[in-house]
Amino acid sequence: MKNIVLVPDSFKGTMSSAQVCQVMEEQILRHIPDARISKIPVADGGEGSVDCFLAAVGGEKVIVQVKGPYMEEMEGFYGLIDGGKTAVIEMAACAGLPQVGDNLHPNQTTTYGVGQLMADAIGRGCIKLVIGLGGSATNDMGAGAAAALGIKFLNKAGEAFVPVGGILGEIASIDMSGLLPGIRKAEIVAMCDIDNPLYGPNGAAYIFGPQKGADEAMVRRLDGQLQMAAGVIKRDLGTDVADLPGAGAAGGMGAGMVAFFGARLEMGIETVLDVVGFDRLLERADVVFTGEGRLDSQSLRGKVVVGVARRAKAKEVPVLAVVGSVSEGAEAAYNEGVTAIFSINKAPIPFSEAKGKSVENLAFTMDSLMRVMRIQAN
Amino acid sequence: MKNIVLVPDSFKGTMSSAQVCQVMEEQILRHIPDARISKIPVADGGEGSVDCFLAAVGGEKVIVQVKGPYMEEMEGFYGLIDGGKTAVIEMAACAGLPQVGDNLHPNQTTTYGVGQLMADAIGRGCIKLVIGLGGSATNDMGAGAAAALGIKFLNKAGEAFVPVGGILGEIASIDMSGLLPGIRKAEIVAMCDIDNPLYGPNGAAYIFGPQKGADEAMVRRLDGQLQMAAGVIKRDLGTDVADLPGAGAAGGMGAGMVAFFGARLEMGIETVLDVVGFDRLLERADVVFTGEGRLDSQSLRGKVVVGVARRAKAKEVPVLAVVGSVSEGAEAAYNEGVTAIFSINKAPIPFSEAKGKSVENLAFTMDSLMRVMRIQAN
Repeated sequence: MKNIVLVPDSFKGTMSSAQVCQVMEEQILRHIPDARISKIPVADGGEGSVDCFLAAVGGEKVIVQVKGPYMEEMEGFYGLIDGGKTAVIEMAACAGLPQVGDNLHPNQTTTYGVGQLMADAIGRGCIKLVIGLGGSATNDMGAGAAAALGIKFLNKAGEAFVPVGGILGEIASIDMSGLLPGIRKAEIVAMCDIDNPLYGPNGAAYIFGPQKGADEAMVRRLDGQLQMAAGVIKRDLGTDVADLPGAGAAGGMGAGMVAFFGARLEMGIETVLDVVGFDRLLERADVVFTGEGRLDSQSLRGKVVVGVARRAKAKEVPVLAVVGSVSEGAEAAYNEGVTAIFSINKAPIPFSEAKGKSVENLAFTMDSLMRVMRIQAN
Repeated sequence: MKNIVLVPDSFKGTMSSAQVCQVMEEQILRHIPDARISKIPVADGGEGSVDCFLAAVGGEKVIVQVKGPYMEEMEGFYGLIDGGKTAVIEMAACAGLPQVGDNLHPNQTTTYGVGQLMADAIGRGCIKLVIGLGGSATNDMGAGAAAALGIKFLNKAGEAFVPVGGILGEIASIDMSGLLPGIRKAEIVAMCDIDNPLYGPNGAAYIFGPQKGADEAMVRRLDGQLQMAAGVIKRDLGTDVADLPGAGAAGGMGAGMVAFFGARLEMGIETVLDVVGFDRLLERADVVFTGEGRLDSQSLRGKVVVGVARRAKAKEVPVLAVVGSVSEGAEAAYNEGVTAIFSINKAPIPFSEAKGKSVENLAFTMDSLMRVMRIQAN
C-alpha cells in the first residue's frame, strides 16, 4: 500500500478538487509516511482547470495579452505541460463569467481571446491543445476564436467581421483559407460534459442563455442566430453541427470547436485521465482514491468516479470512492470498478450545517479508511 | 478474517442491538460466506435484556407466576444460561413501565415480583444472578423484592409490611434473618449504567421520579422516604448506601441490591462481556465490530463501544465501530482500542429523514467495510 493515486472531482459548493487532494494526502501520510502519492485534482473545464492540470503534472503558466469578452485588452493565461507540447486552456480565462461580472450580454460577448490563446500556444510549438469549455459568458459559437485564428466571416456585402452571438445570422459565407496552419495540424480536444445540441429547446440559448443574462426575447434571438450560422457552416464547411451532442456547450463553442478547428469533444474526465497519463500511473498503483460531491445513478454517465473506476478496473486496481452524498442507485458504480463507497457525513444533520465541516469530515473519513487498511497490513 | 465478533449496542430510536447484529451478519456473509460469526447483541439492563443474553449465549426462558407492580398476578420470566448456573433477570419484566402503562404511581408500585423471579432462579440451583435495573416503574428501593425473599420490614408497631415508595419511611426496623439462604451464597450482579446517589437533587426521585409519573410534591415525598429508609438500613444492616454511586438506579433498587442482597453494581457492558465470555471469544477473533447510536466524549464513560474496545485492545484485536453519529471528542476512542470509526450516514440529511433508513444505511456501510477489507486479503 505504498503507491496511491488521488483523483477526486471537486465537492460542489464545499471543496475544490485540489483541496480534496490535499486533505486526502495529509491523512494518508499520517499513516504511511513514505507513501508515494500522485495527486490529480480533476479539472472540470471551467475556471481553475489550468491550475488543476498544472498541479497534476507540473508545467508552466503562460501569460498572454488578449482581448476580453468585450474586446477589451486583458491578461489571459494558459498552461504548458508535457514538455511544452501540450497547452491547456480554459475559456473562462478570457471569455468567461469571471470577466464580465454583472455586465451580462451574451449577444455581444466574444471568444476572440480564446483564439489568441490558441494561437500563442501554436506559436510556442504546441501540437496538442486541450480546451475547457466551462464557465463561458458568450454565445458566439466560437466564431470570435475562429476569427482570431484567421478564419474570415463575411456578410452579405462581402465584408469581413467578427460575429458575436447577436449577429451570427449575418454570416453570409465563411472563408477558412486563412486559418493558422498549426491549428490544422494540432490535435485539439475540447472538454465537454454536456450533450446539448446547438439550438432548439435543449440548445445553448434556451438552456444556458438565461444564466448568461439573456431574457426570453434574447434567448429566442440567440437561438435563431445559432440556427442560421449552422446552416452556413453546413453549406460552406460541410460539417453538420445541428444535432451533434455537445454542440451547444459554452454558447455553441462546442459546435465551433468541431466545425472550425476539427476538435474532438470529449468527456472532461477522459481528457484529464489521458493528459495526466492515468493508465501509466495505474501500472504501479496499489489503490486509487476518488470522490465527488454526490454519487448517484447520474454518476454512471461520465462523471469522475465512474470514469476513474472504469480504467482502474481494467488494470485491477482497487478504487475507493469518498463522496459527499451517496444517493439512490450509487451501488451501480460497483459494476464499473468502484471497490467501496464511503460518505463523509459523520452525523445526521442537513447540508446547511454539514457544509462548513466538509474538510474536517473528509479528513475524518480518510483517517478511518487508512486505519482499516492498516488492520490488514499487519 | 474468518472469526468475527459482533457486539453492538442498540442505536437508540432506530435499531435494537439484535437488529444491528443481524444486519451486520448478513453483510459479512455476503463477502465471507464461511465466516464464523459470534453475535452478542448488548443488553442495556432494560426491557429486552433477557432476550439479548439468550441470543448471545443460548439458554432457556423460564416463565414464572409472580406479582406485578400493583401486586396483581402476572406472568414474569427470566433467562437461564450457562448450563442453568446463571439467571438473567430484567426488572422490567414485572416491575417495569411496560406493566403499568399510563397507570403511573411510583409511590405505590413494588418490586416484589423481582424477588420472586430471584427466588425461583435460586430454587432451580442458580449460583449467579444477573439483574438488569432498567425501565423500572417503582421507587421502593428494592424493598418489595427483599420482602419476597424473606427479609422482614417492621413498622413502629412491630408489624411486618411490604414497603412501597410512598411509605418507606414507615420502616422502623429490618430483620434479615429470614432471607433465602441461596441469595446469601449466590453471586449477584446488578447492571447499572448510571451513578446517581439514592436521594437528594441527583437522586432517584428527583431525576427519575417525573418520568415515572411523580409530580413535584410526590418527588419531594419519595425523596424523603428514601432518605429515611437509608437511615434505618445504615443502623440495622450497617451498609451506608446514601452516597453509593448507582444507589439511585431503578427507584433506589441499586441501593437495595447492595444492602439487602450483597450485590455488585456494575456497568452493563462489563456484565454482558463477562457473562458471554467475551475475553475467550477474543482469543480467536480476527476483528470485532461494535457500534452505538452516537459516539462522543461521553462514550468514554463506560458505554458499549469503549467497553468493548478496552478488552479487545488488551488482546490486540482490531475493533471497528459503526455508529449512527460521530460527535465531538469521538476520536478519543482510538486511545481506548477502537481501530476506526464509521458513521452510517450516507447523505447530509437531518435525523428525522435519516431515521427511516437506518437499516439500509447500516447495511451499506457494512458492505463498504467488507469491500475495503477484501482489498487487503487479495
